[in-house]
Amino acid sequence: MSLACTQYLMKNPDCPLCQSTNEHELWRDDFCRVIWVDEPDYPGFCRIILSHHVREMTDLAPQDRRRLMDVVFAVEAVVRTVLRPDKINLASLGNMVPHLHWHVIPRFADDRHFPDAIWAPPRRDAGCRPPPEADVRPRLMALLRERLPFYPE
Amino acid sequence: MSLACTQYLMKNPDCPLCQSTNEHELWRDDFCRVIWVDEPDYPGFCRIILSHHVREMTDLAPQDRRRLMDVVFAVEAVVRTVLRPDKINLASLGNMVPHLHWHVIPRFADDRHFPDAIWAPPRRDAGCRPPPEADVRPRLMALLRERLPFYPE
Repeated sequence: MSLACTQYLMKNPDCPLCQSTNEHELWRDDFCRVIWVDEPDYPGFCRIILSHHVREMTDLAPQDRRRLMDVVFAVEAVVRTVLRPDKINLASLGNMVPHLHWHVIPRFADDRHFPDAIWAPPRRDAGCRPPPEADVRPRLMALLRERLPFYPE
Repeated sequence: MSLACTQYLMKNPDCPLCQSTNEHELWRDDFCRVIWVDEPDYPGFCRIILSHHVREMTDLAPQDRRRLMDVVFAVEAVVRTVLRPDKINLASLGNMVPHLHWHVIPRFADDRHFPDAIWAPPRRDAGCRPPPEADVRPRLMALLRERLPFYPE
């Protein structure tokens, strides 16, 4: 289970995603990690971060794109199981930090921005639907580690 | 090249993406279509729309997720070739229309929202970098049809 192409840049000293400091890690292997995003309005918001400093999906070899998306979809499945959101939002933007990472965001009809993207101006105060972090985080972690092989550092 | 699972809902009469009216189609097969998004600030913005009425990526069979992402990445590659953007943004939101579709958005450092998401409030008037639609659209169409097998209706 190693990268198909070894020419990926391993670390960029100026990139905040090349280090994993102060992250709430839910899962990792030697290819990517899944973290809990500290966003009180969106409990269950997860981010999948590639280990290597790569800018775009099409800079990855096709088999590595699939590998990364398989993790994204595993996270989507687990987030749906635990939170039962009205919709899942997936996004890879990286305009500020051009190091491949995917957002998996559970959305609820009464959340702050629904039906707009979470980057739009809020439409309302936060809804009360999502359960608190203490309930959600351990369940996401446990289900992810059941579903995907886990490689601690 | 047919769907692995035939239980997908074919059409929902209330869904605007189940019909393909007034779209500028760049490519299609029996599984999905790629359209030009009419967004003057973002020439080269493409949308990939699944033919079937399916809500989430994890509602698709794994091989169908891969098939759809392979089209998304083919569009990304072609958009990068034609427009040479500073960054590509990929997103599948669907809060307003819960029928699977992917946005592929070429981003430029001087575009209206950079480095924010295009759903955020604009930061400036449009930049002058992107070339006009008449230059871009036929090239995207030609390159996509070179890269992917095309199935006209």
